[in-house]
Amino acid sequence: MSRTAVIAGSGRLPAAVAGALDAPLVCALDGFSPEGLAVDMVFRVERLVPFFHALEDAGVTTVTFAGAVQRPRLDPALFDAGTAQLVPRLMGAMAQGDDATLRAVIGLFEEAGFAVEGTARIAPALVPGAGVLCGTISDRDEADATRAAAIVQALGAVDVGQGCVVAQGLCLAVEALPGTDAMLAGLATLDARLRPDPARGRGLFYKAPKPGQDLRVDLPTLGPDTVARVAEAGLGGIVWEAGGVICLDRAGMIAAASDAGLFLWAR
Amino acid sequence: MSRTAVIAGSGRLPAAVAGALDAPLVCALDGFSPEGLAVDMVFRVERLVPFFHALEDAGVTTVTFAGAVQRPRLDPALFDAGTAQLVPRLMGAMAQGDDATLRAVIGLFEEAGFAVEGTARIAPALVPGAGVLCGTISDRDEADATRAAAIVQALGAVDVGQGCVVAQGLCLAVEALPGTDAMLAGLATLDARLRPDPARGRGLFYKAPKPGQDLRVDLPTLGPDTVARVAEAGLGGIVWEAGGVICLDRAGMIAAASDAGLFLWAR
Repeated sequence: MSRTAVIAGSGRLPAAVAGALDAPLVCALDGFSPEGLAVDMVFRVERLVPFFHALEDAGVTTVTFAGAVQRPRLDPALFDAGTAQLVPRLMGAMAQGDDATLRAVIGLFEEAGFAVEGTARIAPALVPGAGVLCGTISDRDEADATRAAAIVQALGAVDVGQGCVVAQGLCLAVEALPGTDAMLAGLATLDARLRPDPARGRGLFYKAPKPGQDLRVDLPTLGPDTVARVAEAGLGGIVWEAGGVICLDRAGMIAAASDAGLFLWAR
Repeated sequence: MSRTAVIAGSGRLPAAVAGALDAPLVCALDGFSPEGLAVDMVFRVERLVPFFHALEDAGVTTVTFAGAVQRPRLDPALFDAGTAQLVPRLMGAMAQGDDATLRAVIGLFEEAGFAVEGTARIAPALVPGAGVLCGTISDRDEADATRAAAIVQALGAVDVGQGCVVAQGLCLAVEALPGTDAMLAGLATLDARLRPDPARGRGLFYKAPKPGQDLRVDLPTLGPDTVARVAEAGLGGIVWEAGGVICLDRAGMIAAASDAGLFLWAR
Protein backbone atom coordinates (compact mmCIF):
# COMPACT_ATOMS: atom_id res chain seq x y z
CA MET A 1 0.00 0.00 0.00
CA SER A 2 1.32 3.42 -0.97
CA ARG A 3 -0.28 6.39 0.64
CA THR A 4 0.34 10.15 0.64
CA ALA A 5 0.25 12.24 3.82
CA VAL A 6 -0.78 15.88 3.70
CA ILE A 7 1.20 17.77 6.33
CA ALA A 8 -1.32 20.50 6.95
CA GLY A 9 -1.02 24.00 8.33
CA SER A 10 -3.85 26.52 8.57
CA GLY A 11 -6.04 27.95 5.82
CA ARG A 12 -7.96 26.46 2.92
CA LEU A 13 -5.08 24.99 0.94
CA PRO A 14 -4.78 21.66 2.81
CA ALA A 15 -8.40 20.76 2.00
CA ALA A 16 -7.84 21.65 -1.67
CA VAL A 17 -4.71 19.48 -1.84
CA ALA A 18 -6.32 16.58 0.05
CA GLY A 19 -9.26 16.77 -2.36
CA ALA A 20 -6.92 15.91 -5.23
CA LEU A 21 -5.69 12.72 -3.51
CA ASP A 22 -7.13 9.25 -3.05
CA ALA A 23 -7.46 8.51 0.69
CA PRO A 24 -4.71 10.81 1.99
CA LEU A 25 -3.59 10.73 5.61
CA VAL A 26 -4.13 14.24 6.97
CA CYS A 27 -1.58 15.27 9.61
CA ALA A 28 -1.55 18.62 11.39
CA LEU A 29 1.10 20.31 13.47
CA ASP A 30 -0.27 20.71 16.99
CA GLY A 31 -1.89 24.15 17.23
CA PHE A 32 -2.66 24.59 13.54
CA SER A 33 -5.98 23.56 12.02
CA PRO A 34 -6.77 23.35 8.34
CA GLU A 35 -10.17 24.75 7.31
CA GLY A 36 -12.83 22.28 6.21
CA LEU A 37 -10.67 19.20 6.57
CA ALA A 38 -10.73 16.43 9.20
CA VAL A 39 -7.32 15.71 10.75
CA ASP A 40 -6.26 12.07 11.11
CA MET A 41 -3.09 12.59 13.10
CA VAL A 42 -1.69 15.50 15.17
CA PHE A 43 2.07 15.71 15.66
CA ARG A 44 4.61 17.87 17.47
CA VAL A 45 8.09 18.88 16.34
CA GLU A 46 9.53 17.56 19.61
CA ARG A 47 8.38 14.07 18.64
CA LEU A 48 9.24 14.07 14.97
CA VAL A 49 10.94 10.65 14.97
CA PRO A 50 7.93 8.87 16.53
CA PHE A 51 5.76 10.73 13.99
CA PHE A 52 7.90 9.30 11.16
CA HIS A 53 7.31 5.81 12.56
CA ALA A 54 3.56 6.43 12.77
CA LEU A 55 3.54 7.51 9.12
CA GLU A 56 5.36 4.35 8.13
CA ASP A 57 2.90 2.26 10.13
CA ALA A 58 0.07 3.95 8.23
CA GLY A 59 1.62 2.93 4.90
CA VAL A 60 2.74 6.45 3.96
CA THR A 61 5.51 6.68 1.36
CA THR A 62 5.02 10.28 0.14
CA VAL A 63 4.37 13.52 2.01
CA THR A 64 3.28 16.95 0.79
CA PHE A 65 3.17 20.21 2.75
CA ALA A 66 0.15 22.49 2.50
CA GLY A 67 -0.91 25.56 4.43
CA ALA A 68 0.69 28.14 6.67
CA VAL A 69 2.51 27.43 9.92
CA GLN A 70 4.31 29.85 12.17
CA ARG A 71 7.46 28.74 13.89
CA PRO A 72 6.27 26.60 16.84
CA ARG A 73 7.55 26.99 20.39
CA LEU A 74 9.38 23.90 21.54
CA ASP A 75 8.91 22.28 24.96
CA PRO A 76 12.19 20.61 26.01
CA ALA A 77 10.34 18.15 28.25
CA LEU A 78 8.53 16.57 25.30
CA PHE A 79 11.50 15.47 23.20
CA ASP A 80 12.07 11.78 22.65
CA ALA A 81 15.66 10.57 22.39
CA GLY A 82 15.66 10.26 18.60
CA THR A 83 14.22 13.70 17.92
CA ALA A 84 16.53 15.25 20.54
CA GLN A 85 19.48 14.28 18.35
CA LEU A 86 18.01 16.37 15.52
CA VAL A 87 17.78 19.51 17.67
CA PRO A 88 21.20 21.03 16.88
CA ARG A 89 20.48 20.73 13.17
CA LEU A 90 16.98 22.20 13.46
CA MET A 91 18.20 25.06 15.66
CA GLY A 92 21.00 25.88 13.25
CA ALA A 93 18.54 26.04 10.38
CA MET A 94 16.04 28.16 12.33
CA ALA A 95 18.77 30.68 13.10
CA GLN A 96 19.29 31.11 9.36
CA GLY A 97 15.64 31.94 8.68
CA ASP A 98 12.48 30.43 7.33
CA ASP A 99 13.91 29.18 4.03
CA ALA A 100 16.70 27.29 5.75
CA THR A 101 14.23 25.84 8.25
CA LEU A 102 11.98 24.54 5.48
CA ARG A 103 14.95 23.02 3.67
CA ALA A 104 16.02 21.29 6.88
CA VAL A 105 12.52 19.92 7.51
CA ILE A 106 12.29 18.57 3.96
CA GLY A 107 15.70 16.97 4.42
CA LEU A 108 14.58 15.21 7.61
CA PHE A 109 11.52 13.71 5.91
CA GLU A 110 13.61 12.56 2.97
CA GLU A 111 16.24 10.97 5.19
CA ALA A 112 13.45 9.15 7.01
CA GLY A 113 12.60 7.55 3.67
CA PHE A 114 9.66 9.63 2.48
CA ALA A 115 9.33 11.22 -0.93
CA VAL A 116 8.45 14.93 -0.59
CA GLU A 117 6.27 16.23 -3.41
CA GLY A 118 5.09 19.78 -4.13
CA THR A 119 1.55 20.97 -4.73
CA ALA A 120 2.18 21.27 -8.47
CA ARG A 121 2.83 17.51 -8.65
CA ILE A 122 0.16 16.38 -6.19
CA ALA A 123 -2.62 18.73 -7.30
CA PRO A 124 -1.67 20.22 -10.70
CA ALA A 125 -5.05 21.93 -11.07
CA LEU A 126 -4.03 24.27 -8.22
CA VAL A 127 -0.82 25.49 -9.91
CA PRO A 128 -1.59 26.84 -13.39
CA GLY A 129 0.95 26.37 -16.14
CA ALA A 130 1.66 29.13 -18.63
CA GLY A 131 -1.35 30.76 -20.26
CA VAL A 132 -3.84 33.62 -20.09
CA LEU A 133 -6.74 32.55 -17.86
CA CYS A 134 -8.96 35.51 -18.76
CA GLY A 135 -8.86 38.98 -20.30
CA THR A 136 -6.41 40.30 -22.90
CA ILE A 137 -2.77 41.25 -22.46
CA SER A 138 -1.57 44.41 -24.22
CA ASP A 139 2.01 45.15 -25.26
CA ARG A 140 2.11 47.60 -22.36
CA ASP A 141 1.08 44.80 -19.97
CA GLU A 142 3.78 42.51 -21.40
CA ALA A 143 6.42 45.18 -20.83
CA ASP A 144 5.13 45.84 -17.31
CA ALA A 145 5.22 42.11 -16.52
CA THR A 146 8.83 41.87 -17.70
CA ARG A 147 9.82 44.80 -15.52
CA ALA A 148 7.90 43.46 -12.52
CA ALA A 149 9.58 40.06 -12.82
CA ALA A 150 12.99 41.75 -12.81
CA ILE A 151 12.07 43.74 -9.69
CA VAL A 152 10.84 40.68 -7.78
CA GLN A 153 14.00 38.83 -8.83
CA ALA A 154 16.18 41.63 -7.43
CA LEU A 155 14.14 41.78 -4.22
CA GLY A 156 14.39 38.05 -3.73
CA ALA A 157 18.17 38.33 -3.63
CA VAL A 158 17.83 40.40 -0.44
CA ASP A 159 15.00 38.21 0.88
CA VAL A 160 12.25 40.83 0.52
CA GLY A 161 8.71 40.06 -0.63
CA GLN A 162 7.48 38.09 -3.57
CA GLY A 163 5.41 40.73 -5.33
CA CYS A 164 5.21 44.23 -6.74
CA VAL A 165 2.98 46.54 -8.76
CA VAL A 166 4.12 48.08 -12.06
CA ALA A 167 2.18 50.47 -14.30
CA GLN A 168 3.55 52.04 -17.49
CA GLY A 169 7.00 50.82 -16.58
CA LEU A 170 6.89 52.53 -13.18
CA CYS A 171 7.08 50.62 -9.90
CA LEU A 172 4.11 51.75 -7.80
CA ALA A 173 4.56 49.40 -4.84
CA VAL A 174 6.75 46.65 -3.51
CA GLU A 175 5.60 43.90 -1.19
CA ALA A 176 7.37 43.85 2.17
CA LEU A 177 6.67 42.14 5.51
CA PRO A 178 3.06 43.39 5.84
CA GLY A 179 2.17 41.37 2.73
CA THR A 180 0.09 41.55 -0.43
CA ASP A 181 -3.14 42.77 1.14
CA ALA A 182 -1.45 45.67 2.94
CA MET A 183 0.36 46.68 -0.25
CA LEU A 184 -2.83 46.64 -2.34
CA ALA A 185 -4.82 48.46 0.37
CA GLY A 186 -2.17 51.19 0.39
CA LEU A 187 -2.47 51.59 -3.37
CA ALA A 188 -6.27 51.72 -3.16
CA THR A 189 -6.08 54.79 -0.91
CA LEU A 190 -3.12 56.46 -2.64
CA ASP A 191 -3.55 60.03 -3.86
CA ALA A 192 -4.26 59.79 -7.60
CA ARG A 193 -1.63 62.48 -8.26
CA LEU A 194 1.07 60.09 -7.04
CA ARG A 195 0.42 57.49 -9.73
CA PRO A 196 0.47 57.65 -13.54
CA ASP A 197 -2.72 58.37 -15.49
CA PRO A 198 -4.64 55.04 -15.50
CA ALA A 199 -6.10 55.93 -18.91
CA ARG A 200 -2.68 55.12 -20.37
CA GLY A 201 -2.29 51.75 -18.62
CA ARG A 202 -3.71 50.58 -15.31
CA GLY A 203 -0.76 48.37 -14.44
CA LEU A 204 -0.56 44.97 -12.84
CA PHE A 205 0.19 43.05 -9.66
CA TYR A 206 2.97 40.51 -10.14
CA LYS A 207 3.64 37.52 -7.90
CA ALA A 208 6.36 34.90 -7.96
CA PRO A 209 8.13 32.51 -5.63
CA LYS A 210 11.46 33.66 -4.25
CA PRO A 211 14.28 33.05 -6.72
CA GLY A 212 15.91 29.73 -5.91
CA GLN A 213 13.29 28.63 -3.38
CA ASP A 214 12.32 24.96 -3.20
CA LEU A 215 9.05 24.89 -5.15
CA ARG A 216 7.81 21.93 -3.07
CA VAL A 217 6.94 24.15 -0.11
CA ASP A 218 5.63 27.60 0.71
CA LEU A 219 4.47 28.71 -2.75
CA PRO A 220 2.75 32.10 -2.86
CA THR A 221 -1.03 31.81 -3.08
CA LEU A 222 -3.64 33.82 -4.97
CA GLY A 223 -7.41 33.59 -4.66
CA PRO A 224 -10.67 35.42 -5.43
CA ASP A 225 -9.92 37.79 -2.51
CA THR A 226 -6.71 38.83 -4.25
CA VAL A 227 -8.67 39.60 -7.42
CA ALA A 228 -11.06 41.83 -5.44
CA ARG A 229 -8.18 43.74 -3.83
CA VAL A 230 -6.43 44.20 -7.18
CA ALA A 231 -9.64 45.66 -8.62
CA GLU A 232 -9.98 48.01 -5.63
CA ALA A 233 -6.38 49.13 -6.19
CA GLY A 234 -7.33 50.23 -9.71
CA LEU A 235 -5.03 47.81 -11.51
CA GLY A 236 -5.67 46.04 -14.81
CA GLY A 237 -4.81 42.48 -13.82
CA ILE A 238 -2.63 39.89 -12.11
CA VAL A 239 0.43 38.20 -13.57
CA TRP A 240 2.33 35.41 -11.87
CA GLU A 241 5.13 32.98 -12.52
CA ALA A 242 3.62 29.94 -14.21
CA GLY A 243 4.08 26.78 -12.16
CA GLY A 244 5.25 28.74 -9.11
CA VAL A 245 2.05 30.13 -7.61
CA ILE A 246 -1.01 28.39 -6.16
CA CYS A 247 -4.45 29.54 -7.34
CA LEU A 248 -6.98 28.63 -4.66
CA ASP A 249 -10.35 28.39 -6.40
CA ARG A 250 -9.26 29.08 -9.95
CA ALA A 251 -12.85 29.18 -11.24
CA GLY A 252 -13.76 31.75 -8.57
CA MET A 253 -10.74 33.85 -9.54
CA ILE A 254 -11.68 33.80 -13.21
CA ALA A 255 -15.30 34.71 -12.43
CA ALA A 256 -14.26 37.61 -10.19
CA ALA A 257 -11.67 38.86 -12.69
CA SER A 258 -14.08 38.68 -15.61
CA ASP A 259 -16.71 40.61 -13.66
CA ALA A 260 -14.17 43.29 -12.77
CA GLY A 261 -12.64 43.47 -16.27
CA LEU A 262 -9.23 42.22 -15.12
CA PHE A 263 -6.81 39.87 -16.85
CA LEU A 264 -5.20 36.82 -15.20
CA TRP A 265 -1.96 35.61 -16.72
CA ALA A 266 0.27 32.72 -15.65
CA ARG A 267 3.48 33.86 -17.35
CA MET B 1 35.96 86.98 -12.78
CA SER B 2 34.81 83.49 -11.87
CA ARG B 3 31.20 83.07 -10.96
CA THR B 4 28.95 80.11 -10.13
CA ALA B 5 25.46 79.73 -11.59
CA VAL B 6 22.78 77.90 -9.63
CA ILE B 7 20.54 76.08 -12.11
CA ALA B 8 17.41 76.09 -10.00
CA GLY B 9 14.32 73.94 -9.99
CA SER B 10 11.48 74.17 -7.49
CA GLY B 11 11.55 73.81 -3.72
CA ARG B 12 13.75 75.22 -0.96
CA LEU B 13 17.08 73.68 -1.96
CA PRO B 14 18.13 76.34 -4.54
CA ALA B 15 17.92 79.10 -1.90
CA ALA B 16 19.97 76.99 0.53
CA VAL B 17 22.65 76.34 -2.09
CA ALA B 18 22.69 79.97 -3.28
CA GLY B 19 23.10 81.06 0.33
CA ALA B 20 26.41 79.20 0.49
CA LEU B 21 27.81 81.09 -2.51
CA ASP B 22 29.25 84.55 -3.05
CA ALA B 23 27.12 86.41 -5.63
CA PRO B 24 25.76 83.42 -7.56
CA LEU B 25 23.85 83.84 -10.80
CA VAL B 26 20.44 82.22 -10.23
CA CYS B 27 18.97 80.63 -13.36
CA ALA B 28 15.60 78.88 -13.50
CA LEU B 29 14.10 76.60 -16.10
CA ASP B 30 11.02 78.31 -17.50
CA GLY B 31 8.02 77.13 -15.49
CA PHE B 32 9.89 76.20 -12.29
CA SER B 33 10.36 78.66 -9.43
CA PRO B 34 12.62 78.19 -6.45
CA GLU B 35 11.14 79.17 -3.07
CA GLY B 36 12.51 82.31 -1.40
CA LEU B 37 15.08 83.08 -4.07
CA ALA B 38 15.12 85.79 -6.74
CA VAL B 39 15.81 84.50 -10.25
CA ASP B 40 18.36 86.39 -12.37
CA MET B 41 17.84 84.53 -15.63
CA VAL B 42 15.09 82.26 -17.02
CA PHE B 43 16.01 79.75 -19.74
CA ARG B 44 14.33 77.16 -21.93
CA VAL B 45 15.71 73.81 -23.08
CA GLU B 46 14.92 74.76 -26.71
CA ARG B 47 17.43 77.60 -26.43
CA LEU B 48 20.19 75.91 -24.48
CA VAL B 49 23.05 77.11 -26.69
CA PRO B 50 22.07 80.80 -26.40
CA PHE B 51 21.74 80.20 -22.64
CA PHE B 52 25.32 78.86 -22.54
CA HIS B 53 26.48 82.08 -24.25
CA ALA B 54 24.55 84.21 -21.77
CA LEU B 55 26.24 82.37 -18.90
CA GLU B 56 29.64 83.02 -20.44
CA ASP B 57 28.80 86.69 -20.89
CA ALA B 58 27.88 86.85 -17.20
CA GLY B 59 31.32 85.48 -16.25
CA VAL B 60 30.06 82.05 -15.19
CA THR B 61 32.65 79.24 -15.13
CA THR B 62 30.92 76.77 -12.79
CA VAL B 63 27.33 75.55 -12.59
CA THR B 64 25.51 73.59 -9.93
CA PHE B 65 22.05 72.01 -10.14
CA ALA B 66 19.59 72.40 -7.25
CA GLY B 67 15.92 71.60 -6.90
CA ALA B 68 13.33 69.48 -8.62
CA VAL B 69 12.31 69.73 -12.27
CA GLN B 70 9.91 67.58 -14.21
CA ARG B 71 10.66 66.79 -17.81
CA PRO B 72 9.66 69.93 -19.74
CA ARG B 73 7.54 69.89 -22.89
CA LEU B 74 9.46 71.13 -25.88
CA ASP B 75 8.08 73.60 -28.44
CA PRO B 76 9.68 72.85 -31.84
CA ALA B 77 9.13 76.45 -32.99
CA LEU B 78 11.45 77.83 -30.30
CA PHE B 79 14.65 75.97 -31.15
CA ASP B 80 17.66 77.93 -32.36
CA ALA B 81 19.94 76.28 -34.92
CA GLY B 82 22.65 75.33 -32.40
CA THR B 83 20.31 73.74 -29.89
CA ALA B 84 18.41 71.95 -32.67
CA GLN B 85 21.58 69.98 -33.40
CA LEU B 86 21.55 68.68 -29.82
CA VAL B 87 17.99 67.37 -30.12
CA PRO B 88 18.77 63.82 -31.31
CA ARG B 89 21.16 63.36 -28.40
CA LEU B 90 18.70 64.77 -25.85
CA MET B 91 15.82 62.71 -27.21
CA GLY B 92 17.93 59.56 -27.13
CA ALA B 93 18.81 60.21 -23.50
CA MET B 94 15.22 61.01 -22.52
CA ALA B 95 14.06 57.73 -24.01
CA GLN B 96 16.45 55.94 -21.63
CA GLY B 97 15.02 57.59 -18.54
CA ASP B 98 15.75 60.30 -16.01
CA ASP B 99 19.27 59.18 -15.12
CA ALA B 100 20.39 59.15 -18.74
CA THR B 101 18.77 62.54 -19.29
CA LEU B 102 20.63 64.06 -16.35
CA ARG B 103 23.92 62.57 -17.53
CA ALA B 104 23.31 64.04 -21.00
CA VAL B 105 22.51 67.49 -19.58
CA ILE B 106 25.66 67.46 -17.44
CA GLY B 107 27.64 66.44 -20.52
CA LEU B 108 26.28 69.35 -22.54
CA PHE B 109 27.24 71.88 -19.87
CA GLU B 110 30.73 70.37 -19.59
CA GLU B 111 31.27 70.38 -23.35
CA ALA B 112 30.22 74.05 -23.37
CA GLY B 113 33.17 74.69 -21.06
CA PHE B 114 31.52 74.83 -17.64
CA ALA B 115 32.62 72.92 -14.57
CA VAL B 116 29.64 71.08 -13.02
CA GLU B 117 29.85 70.80 -9.24
CA GLY B 118 27.57 68.95 -6.84
CA THR B 119 25.89 70.29 -3.71
CA ALA B 120 28.39 68.52 -1.46
CA ARG B 121 31.22 70.59 -2.98
CA ILE B 122 29.32 73.89 -3.28
CA ALA B 123 27.52 73.78 0.06
CA PRO B 124 29.13 71.09 2.23
CA ALA B 125 27.03 72.07 5.24
CA LEU B 126 23.99 70.65 3.42
CA VAL B 127 25.48 67.17 2.89
CA PRO B 128 26.58 65.67 6.21
CA GLY B 129 29.66 63.46 6.30
CA ALA B 130 29.73 60.31 8.43
CA GLY B 131 28.60 60.69 12.02
CA VAL B 132 25.70 60.43 14.45
CA LEU B 133 23.88 63.78 14.49
CA CYS B 134 21.71 62.96 17.49
CA GLY B 135 20.47 60.03 19.59
CA THR B 136 22.18 56.71 20.20
CA ILE B 137 22.62 53.77 17.83
CA SER B 138 22.12 50.27 19.26
CA ASP B 139 23.64 47.07 17.87
CA ARG B 140 20.15 46.25 16.60
CA ASP B 141 20.04 49.58 14.74
CA GLU B 142 23.48 48.91 13.24
CA ALA B 143 22.32 45.53 11.96
CA ASP B 144 19.10 47.04 10.60
CA ALA B 145 21.07 49.77 8.79
CA THR B 146 23.34 47.17 7.19
CA ARG B 147 20.33 45.19 5.99
CA ALA B 148 18.54 48.34 4.75
CA ALA B 149 21.59 49.45 2.78
CA ALA B 150 21.74 46.05 1.07
CA ILE B 151 18.03 46.28 0.16
CA VAL B 152 18.35 49.78 -1.32
CA GLN B 153 21.42 48.62 -3.25
CA ALA B 154 19.45 45.71 -4.74
CA LEU B 155 16.49 47.98 -5.57
CA GLY B 156 18.74 50.51 -7.25
CA ALA B 157 19.88 47.86 -9.70
CA VAL B 158 16.29 47.68 -11.01
CA ASP B 159 15.83 51.46 -10.77
CA VAL B 160 13.33 51.38 -7.89
CA GLY B 161 13.28 53.85 -5.01
CA GLN B 162 16.07 55.08 -2.82
CA GLY B 163 14.73 54.12 0.57
CA CYS B 164 13.26 51.43 2.78
CA VAL B 165 12.25 50.69 6.36
CA VAL B 166 13.81 47.85 8.38
CA ALA B 167 13.00 46.79 11.94
CA GLN B 168 14.54 43.80 13.75
CA GLY B 169 16.01 42.65 10.45
CA LEU B 170 12.61 42.62 8.74
CA CYS B 171 11.80 44.84 5.77
CA LEU B 172 8.58 46.68 6.62
CA ALA B 173 8.36 48.92 3.56
CA VAL B 174 10.12 49.78 0.33
CA GLU B 175 9.98 53.14 -1.37
CA ALA B 176 8.46 53.07 -4.86
CA LEU B 177 7.14 55.76 -7.23
CA PRO B 178 4.78 57.40 -4.70
CA GLY B 179 7.82 58.39 -2.63
CA THR B 180 9.02 58.63 0.95
CA ASP B 181 6.00 60.42 2.38
CA ALA B 182 3.52 57.91 0.96
CA MET B 183 5.62 55.02 2.29
CA LEU B 184 5.84 56.49 5.79
CA ALA B 185 2.13 57.42 5.81
CA GLY B 186 1.29 53.81 4.93
CA LEU B 187 3.38 52.56 7.83
CA ALA B 188 1.77 55.05 10.23
CA THR B 189 -1.66 53.55 9.53
CA LEU B 190 -0.56 49.90 9.30
CA ASP B 191 -2.28 47.38 11.55
CA ALA B 192 0.08 46.82 14.51
CA ARG B 193 -0.31 43.03 14.10
CA LEU B 194 1.46 43.27 10.73
CA ARG B 195 4.72 44.62 12.19
CA PRO B 196 7.12 43.29 14.81
CA ASP B 197 6.74 44.29 18.45
CA PRO B 198 8.26 47.82 18.67
CA ALA B 199 9.36 47.10 22.24
CA ARG B 200 12.10 44.92 20.75
CA GLY B 201 13.34 47.51 18.24
CA ARG B 202 11.44 50.31 16.53
CA GLY B 203 13.41 50.13 13.30
CA LEU B 204 14.67 52.82 10.98
CA PHE B 205 14.12 54.62 7.71
CA TYR B 206 17.13 54.35 5.40
CA LYS B 207 17.87 56.65 2.47
CA ALA B 208 20.64 56.60 -0.11
CA PRO B 209 21.33 57.78 -3.63
CA LYS B 210 20.88 55.22 -6.38
CA PRO B 211 23.95 52.99 -6.75
CA GLY B 212 26.20 54.44 -9.43
CA GLN B 213 24.28 57.71 -9.79
CA ASP B 214 26.21 60.91 -10.47
CA LEU B 215 26.35 62.52 -7.03
CA ARG B 216 26.47 65.99 -8.61
CA VAL B 217 22.74 65.98 -9.34
CA ASP B 218 19.45 64.76 -7.92
CA LEU B 219 20.58 63.70 -4.44
CA PRO B 220 17.79 62.50 -2.15
CA THR B 221 16.76 65.13 0.38
CA LEU B 222 15.71 64.92 4.02
CA GLY B 223 14.28 67.67 6.21
CA PRO B 224 12.39 68.32 9.44
CA ASP B 225 9.17 67.15 7.73
CA THR B 226 10.81 63.77 7.14
CA VAL B 227 11.67 63.54 10.85
CA ALA B 228 8.03 64.24 11.76
CA ARG B 229 6.77 61.53 9.39
CA VAL B 230 9.31 59.00 10.69
CA ALA B 231 8.11 59.69 14.23
CA GLU B 232 4.47 59.24 13.17
CA ALA B 233 5.43 55.93 11.54
CA GLY B 234 6.66 54.70 14.94
CA LEU B 235 10.29 54.26 13.89
CA GLY B 236 13.39 54.85 16.01
CA GLY B 237 15.39 57.02 13.62
CA ILE B 238 16.78 57.87 10.20
CA VAL B 239 19.97 56.53 8.67
CA TRP B 240 21.40 57.71 5.36
CA GLU B 241 24.45 57.30 3.20
CA ALA B 242 27.01 59.84 4.37
CA GLY B 243 27.90 62.32 1.65
CA GLY B 244 25.04 61.19 -0.58
CA VAL B 245 21.96 62.83 0.94
CA ILE B 246 21.03 66.49 1.38
CA CYS B 247 19.79 67.61 4.80
CA LEU B 248 17.70 70.73 4.33
CA ASP B 249 17.76 72.58 7.66
CA ARG B 250 20.05 70.27 9.59
CA ALA B 251 19.52 72.20 12.84
CA GLY B 252 15.74 71.89 12.44
CA MET B 253 16.08 68.16 11.79
CA ILE B 254 18.19 67.66 14.92
CA ALA B 255 15.76 69.69 17.04
CA ALA B 256 12.76 67.73 15.74
CA ALA B 257 14.53 64.38 16.18
CA SER B 258 15.69 65.19 19.70
CA ASP B 259 12.15 66.23 20.69
CA ALA B 260 10.73 62.99 19.29
CA GLY B 261 13.48 60.77 20.75
CA LEU B 262 14.80 59.71 17.33
CA PHE B 263 18.37 59.17 16.18
CA LEU B 264 19.87 60.69 13.02
CA TRP B 265 22.88 58.89 11.56
CA ALA B 266 24.89 59.71 8.43
CA ARG B 267 26.42 56.28 7.86
